[in-house]
Amino acid sequence: MYRTHTCGELRLENVSGKVLLSGWVQKIRNLGGMTFIDLRDRYGITQLVVDGETNKDLSDEVRELGREYVIQIEGVVAERSNKNPKMPTGDVEILLESLKVLNSSELPPFTIEDDTDGGEELRMRYRYLDIRRNPIRENLELRHRMGFEIRNFLNSLNFIEIETPVLIKSTPEGARDFVVPSRMNRGEFYALPQSPQVFKQLLMIGGMDKYFQIVKCFRDEDLRADRQPEFTQIDCEMSFIDQDDVLNSFEGLAKHLFKNIKGVEIDYDFPRLPYSEAMKYYGSDKPDIRFEMKFVEISDTVKSNGFKVFDDAEYVGAICAAGCAGYSRKQLDKLTNFVKSPQVGATGMIYIKYNQDGTVKSSVDKFFSQEKLIEVCEQCGAKPGDLVLILAGGKSKTLSALGDLRLEMGDQLGLRDNNKFAPLWVVDFPLLEWDEDSNRFHAMHHPFTSPKDEDVELIETAPGRVRANAYDIVINGVEIGGGSIRIHNEQLQQKMFELLGFSQEEAEEQFGFLMNAFKYGAPPHGGVAFGFDRWVALFSGAESIRDVIAFPKNNAGRDVMIDSPSSLAQAQLKELSIDVVEEDEEN
Amino acid sequence: MYRTHTCGELRLENVSGKVLLSGWVQKIRNLGGMTFIDLRDRYGITQLVVDGETNKDLSDEVRELGREYVIQIEGVVAERSNKNPKMPTGDVEILLESLKVLNSSELPPFTIEDDTDGGEELRMRYRYLDIRRNPIRENLELRHRMGFEIRNFLNSLNFIEIETPVLIKSTPEGARDFVVPSRMNRGEFYALPQSPQVFKQLLMIGGMDKYFQIVKCFRDEDLRADRQPEFTQIDCEMSFIDQDDVLNSFEGLAKHLFKNIKGVEIDYDFPRLPYSEAMKYYGSDKPDIRFEMKFVEISDTVKSNGFKVFDDAEYVGAICAAGCAGYSRKQLDKLTNFVKSPQVGATGMIYIKYNQDGTVKSSVDKFFSQEKLIEVCEQCGAKPGDLVLILAGGKSKTLSALGDLRLEMGDQLGLRDNNKFAPLWVVDFPLLEWDEDSNRFHAMHHPFTSPKDEDVELIETAPGRVRANAYDIVINGVEIGGGSIRIHNEQLQQKMFELLGFSQEEAEEQFGFLMNAFKYGAPPHGGVAFGFDRWVALFSGAESIRDVIAFPKNNAGRDVMIDSPSSLAQAQLKELSIDVVEEDEEN
Repeated sequence: MYRTHTCGELRLENVSGKVLLSGWVQKIRNLGGMTFIDLRDRYGITQLVVDGETNKDLSDEVRELGREYVIQIEGVVAERSNKNPKMPTGDVEILLESLKVLNSSELPPFTIEDDTDGGEELRMRYRYLDIRRNPIRENLELRHRMGFEIRNFLNSLNFIEIETPVLIKSTPEGARDFVVPSRMNRGEFYALPQSPQVFKQLLMIGGMDKYFQIVKCFRDEDLRADRQPEFTQIDCEMSFIDQDDVLNSFEGLAKHLFKNIKGVEIDYDFPRLPYSEAMKYYGSDKPDIRFEMKFVEISDTVKSNGFKVFDDAEYVGAICAAGCAGYSRKQLDKLTNFVKSPQVGATGMIYIKYNQDGTVKSSVDKFFSQEKLIEVCEQCGAKPGDLVLILAGGKSKTLSALGDLRLEMGDQLGLRDNNKFAPLWVVDFPLLEWDEDSNRFHAMHHPFTSPKDEDVELIETAPGRVRANAYDIVINGVEIGGGSIRIHNEQLQQKMFELLGFSQEEAEEQFGFLMNAFKYGAPPHGGVAFGFDRWVALFSGAESIRDVIAFPKNNAGRDVMIDSPSSLAQAQLKELSIDVVEEDEEN
Repeated sequence: MYRTHTCGELRLENVSGKVLLSGWVQKIRNLGGMTFIDLRDRYGITQLVVDGETNKDLSDEVRELGREYVIQIEGVVAERSNKNPKMPTGDVEILLESLKVLNSSELPPFTIEDDTDGGEELRMRYRYLDIRRNPIRENLELRHRMGFEIRNFLNSLNFIEIETPVLIKSTPEGARDFVVPSRMNRGEFYALPQSPQVFKQLLMIGGMDKYFQIVKCFRDEDLRADRQPEFTQIDCEMSFIDQDDVLNSFEGLAKHLFKNIKGVEIDYDFPRLPYSEAMKYYGSDKPDIRFEMKFVEISDTVKSNGFKVFDDAEYVGAICAAGCAGYSRKQLDKLTNFVKSPQVGATGMIYIKYNQDGTVKSSVDKFFSQEKLIEVCEQCGAKPGDLVLILAGGKSKTLSALGDLRLEMGDQLGLRDNNKFAPLWVVDFPLLEWDEDSNRFHAMHHPFTSPKDEDVELIETAPGRVRANAYDIVINGVEIGGGSIRIHNEQLQQKMFELLGFSQEEAEEQFGFLMNAFKYGAPPHGGVAFGFDRWVALFSGAESIRDVIAFPKNNAGRDVMIDSPSSLAQAQLKELSIDVVEEDEEN
């Protein structure tokens, strides 16, 4: 037996008990003649103590230990004279009686502490040591608990978890697939799923009624800031439901997690904001509504005053930053640089300081009267002491830039508190978006999304105006999930494929089995998929989803710990009937 | 709203209630002027009724419906005069008031009934229709409940579920890997995991203490009878444990599932049978111990009697088939043919009938006295009325053939009842097995398995005799899981690699990161992995694991529903820097 208790378990009531513990040496300190060891395992830290005066041999053994040695000890629990209220085990210590080294350790390449001296690359190379650190361990524990609670909740609603295949078929639509050469089917390939979309719809056609799966998905993208080639979805689908049923079910899931994981009781319905309003008031389809600061369109107020920037603009919009009238030249310049940065892309920024004394000071004083500027301020709901920030230009670009500015001001004003949560649904997304490059419509969500009944007639006349039964769930400006009610009618599905520019043949080749399935009694159905990594990251406060994944890949798609991907032996390639094309062969 | 209740929900207490139901038309019958519809969903079947006399229009609408149409109905719950006690909803029916067709259906290619007229190939092509059948639906529901209970149980023991990567690194050892070309890392490949073995060991080194995962694994094998290229494991690992801790924990899991899934309370400890005894008494490392019929070695008794077959045999073994002394010539010939079939591979079979009158009749009467034959019978525990069956030859082949004969007799005697469960642990597996082809030792389990402490000294002198801390869990002759205590010592691990014929370089290239990890304080650890598909199949009584997988592949590794694998566009291959090698290019 290696232990009677874990290192996080002992309390005052265990005093005088003889115990066996096992764990890692976190730290050794000598104080006077006493030696203290912090012994660590997943559950906590327990202090061990040995008196060098009375127990010299054991004290000498302890001196041989190093950081991260794995040891097993025997001793008696004693009450500490000097208690540590910050540790659950801080009331007790173990009077060491014997010790056995289970394994030694070389000096780790970085310190196993909450704040480590290891850079990300080093920590990734030694991820198994990084995982010993509290922040990573806690993230993985959180991830487990979230997965567990998600399953509990969905099971209680009669959802059943069904595994869909990982070796599927490549479809050219959408992001790039990872593919897998088939040895038994020469020259043919499987693909790894970007999502189980088609399979969950087939399960609904198969009468499974309520399906979910916490499942790995794969996307061969050039990795931007916080993407991984493999990621985890909470994938869900329901039959005989309308949009409200779906939203209510998964709002329930979110509330369950808020309550059971974060201890936050949300006793109100999540706001349901149409996409058009999200864009109008926040310039984003994933607005952070922890704070207001809604956009006010002031085009009508400020146009035709001889200020060319406004007069030429398709859109002039403003936000009011409460209490910021005192912003310095330097602060305002910094904001101007922020909006002019390539990521934001505005051409400039106009401000109006609504001073405490009721006067205004603006960067466009010479074009506008004080009265006009005060009118603008009041239109924006500004009070004396507030600062109004204005962007102008093409509508969609300006809305987006103003959205970035709003978030920046939210940060500056401390309005984006990580311990506050503001969830909402964004609904009524457009069914289609126009793609300039290919000069045709693309599905905004995916080709199976149904149009709103009341908009169906617009499909022929004004496809761009058709709204979809599609929705996203957004928390604190992070889109953590989205879904739609699907088309369950074969004819409508075919019309959608036409609209998206699929030839009959292409549609047949790629989705033939799904369209065929629709012939045999498909029920009305719809669902949602959540980004599990992102949701865990949001709840953990992690900056990157890498921090909530046990063994993540870097931005080049490499696992630097196992050094993968790697080259294959020629024999292995031959068996698969494939060959690597050399760079010069390509032309 | 599509429904107020499911089709499995209504009872007598709902009588007079107005309800909305949605589902599939299972069957329509006309009886006199009445029309009855069986409406089906995942939850059950509810009978709808319409009176053609009083409600001609609705009755006409019903006549338009076909099998598998999806409809929504409104009606009032009524008590049936002619109750059906076999259906949970059999006390009531719905007096139909209105009906809406949600979707029509073509005639399905096979009947959606428990006993369908569809062959396997056809059902696989239309798997989404096959899933509507009760047997498949129930298997998927069982699979969900088993997964759910496994997670509940392991969570209660402080195991945490951690996802390990799917895109990993190819290792030439063991079965073939599926590989994935990396577009971003030209000429390099990921591999799909055959198991998360290395990662779970790294998680233990990372201090996660108790890990589990229900996870897809992949093996590019030529598919035998009941294998799938992708399959699901319940993968588990623990730290600071010895073999008893692991066995007790997972025996607990098995008991939990028996109780909560099968309603079978197992109140005894699972037998722990050494591998050597399993082979000696059952000729198998996965014995079916639902019945006794142990082997008795009779070499000493029957040798040197002038019967060459016995005299030349390395091993002569017998089993006693109770009450079978009356077996006919024909029955005995059939058994002889069975043991001589290529799958079994014996050269012949000898029988002794121990007649009710105390006489014996044997196929070797002319070589042995009655007394001798009675001696053999009694050595085998036979009583008058029993039949003794004897095989002779090389030891390992004969043990195996006798094992097959034992199972056959178990079947013939009805001793292998699917509703009876006899679990056991097989322990003390050999560490190594000699491979004739490569003329060297292979790891019987895998290269990380630890030898028994008391056998460590044999590693140098008699490696074939070293027993491992390795174990399998077997239920009714099916191996549903296995595992081992791992080596946690770097030097011992290196010695193992040497013994297995890895050069320092090969070991470094393939397992370098693991061996490196061992330098930083690896705890004692071990674990187990269960074949989830097989366990579900065992509990469901399914003949094949295909029956408990939503979308299985056939024996050629093809998904005939989505027609995968398939060829890729040349552009896609080019982007991946690979090319398919034509057959004639190969030479």
